[in-house]
Amino acid sequence: MKSDIVRAFKKVQDYICGELERLDGAAKFKEDLWQREGGGGGRTRVIQQGEVFEKGGVNFSEVYGPVSDLMRKQLKMEGDEFYATGVSIVLHPHHPFVPIMHMNIRYFQLDDKDYWFGGGIDMTPHYVDKKMAAKFHDGLNKICQKYHPDFYTNFKKWADDYFFIPHRNETRGVGGIFYDHQRALNDVTKEELLHFAIDLGNAFPHLYEEQYLAGYKKEYSEENIQFRNLRRGRYVEFNLVHDRGTQFGLKTGGRIESILMSLPEHASWLYNFQAKTGSPEESTLLSLKKDVDWLSLLK
Amino acid sequence: MKSDIVRAFKKVQDYICGELERLDGAAKFKEDLWQREGGGGGRTRVIQQGEVFEKGGVNFSEVYGPVSDLMRKQLKMEGDEFYATGVSIVLHPHHPFVPIMHMNIRYFQLDDKDYWFGGGIDMTPHYVDKKMAAKFHDGLNKICQKYHPDFYTNFKKWADDYFFIPHRNETRGVGGIFYDHQRALNDVTKEELLHFAIDLGNAFPHLYEEQYLAGYKKEYSEENIQFRNLRRGRYVEFNLVHDRGTQFGLKTGGRIESILMSLPEHASWLYNFQAKTGSPEESTLLSLKKDVDWLSLLK
Repeated sequence: MKSDIVRAFKKVQDYICGELERLDGAAKFKEDLWQREGGGGGRTRVIQQGEVFEKGGVNFSEVYGPVSDLMRKQLKMEGDEFYATGVSIVLHPHHPFVPIMHMNIRYFQLDDKDYWFGGGIDMTPHYVDKKMAAKFHDGLNKICQKYHPDFYTNFKKWADDYFFIPHRNETRGVGGIFYDHQRALNDVTKEELLHFAIDLGNAFPHLYEEQYLAGYKKEYSEENIQFRNLRRGRYVEFNLVHDRGTQFGLKTGGRIESILMSLPEHASWLYNFQAKTGSPEESTLLSLKKDVDWLSLLK
Repeated sequence: MKSDIVRAFKKVQDYICGELERLDGAAKFKEDLWQREGGGGGRTRVIQQGEVFEKGGVNFSEVYGPVSDLMRKQLKMEGDEFYATGVSIVLHPHHPFVPIMHMNIRYFQLDDKDYWFGGGIDMTPHYVDKKMAAKFHDGLNKICQKYHPDFYTNFKKWADDYFFIPHRNETRGVGGIFYDHQRALNDVTKEELLHFAIDLGNAFPHLYEEQYLAGYKKEYSEENIQFRNLRRGRYVEFNLVHDRGTQFGLKTGGRIESILMSLPEHASWLYNFQAKTGSPEESTLLSLKKDVDWLSLLK
């Protein structure tokens, strides 16, 4: 099954890169192939200074080898040999009214004893458009419903809890779905978990395009650019301080440039920035909360 | 003695702010007074969009209260009540040939049983000028020699080890001095440790001015600005991923805006940036190593 998953994940990467190049219309992904010393490697693909994308990456990796003490501690797992493959994406567009979006799908196996799937898609608008946040959640819900009636509800809550910046007491964006440690259940097979991951991957560029089309024609000012850069600063804070995937990669000697491709080209910090009362900036900051029932806004 | 230390540290903060305002010539520090819920508070002073400084902070704080479990774990200390006071500085200048500089002096006390001093000054040039790095270390060495013949050697090594970014395998800059857990010894009294801290604090603006004068007249290009922003990106990586002070502050509910005043207004990340062979950028990257004997370059 591992080779089926790898083939499927590589196809997802190829498909997403093709769709995003079409959307960008100007820039192409640049590929770096890399090998991991302990076993495996990856295909890092980065797009920079495009028409739509200032910086983005769509990475595939397949790594394996002996479980190190650090991994044992970080992942709280027992086993001798691990195997992990996945696709990871972060997109930073130029336009302040087009959102940052992230996706990850992954498969993990320990010896021949245990395996699990994990993944998710979440969105970080520089400016929250509630209607578009609701549409994004609607798209995710529709994919989830094909696999299990509880997936959307459970994984939406998981995303709220995961994509949270405690030291700022705010969510990274409007959430999405996040899941981990998913094994076959009575009513979901391993094949279905794989297809769920593939479905999410293939849906990603279309979920992105829907958001792009809603925002890209809006005019923007220097103030909008400044606020975009401040929001990107928070994205950097989340990724460097809290994101478990990033922390794990930095501590276990992953390929640094592939891990940190998630960081934006330009980010900014101002001391004690305060949004003006009644401004779109204030409205955005007030929207960055857990447990918002986005789907209810569709009605 | 605590009140003497507080009075001295506040005077150091006042002196430094006055000297830096004189150097900047345009912007003034803006002060925010804040109170800590568990006890104590601080005077955060920030300068933004000046003539010399894009963003900088000179913070004084005095905090105390019961030792929490998290503090016990993080600081590996036994005690019921803690007391901590200090001055912290980070300066981010506009000019790519003028360095980032950091200083911290602090005093810590546990109940009436134990106390220690800590601190340091280190420099992060966007472009390393070896002669100026040597002058900086010479200035620090001269202060250290007034207090103990081993201080410079020991604290310079400590800075090399502390201001290191493992996931990049590079130092944050050209180092400086760093020390912690300093109690009175046979040949250094508690008063002398306090005077050492005060001397470092009062020397800071002059060490900075010496660097400023060597760099500020140099012409620079867009490429220099880009590289400055990439170096600032590394500064962000160090502070958010590795700096123990920042980590401690974020985890124990310190005042976020005071802690993260250390981050630059503009920082940048490019995927897999490579300096051109023979360029000043390459020369800088090759200089970011531990155990460089900077003083030997003076001869």
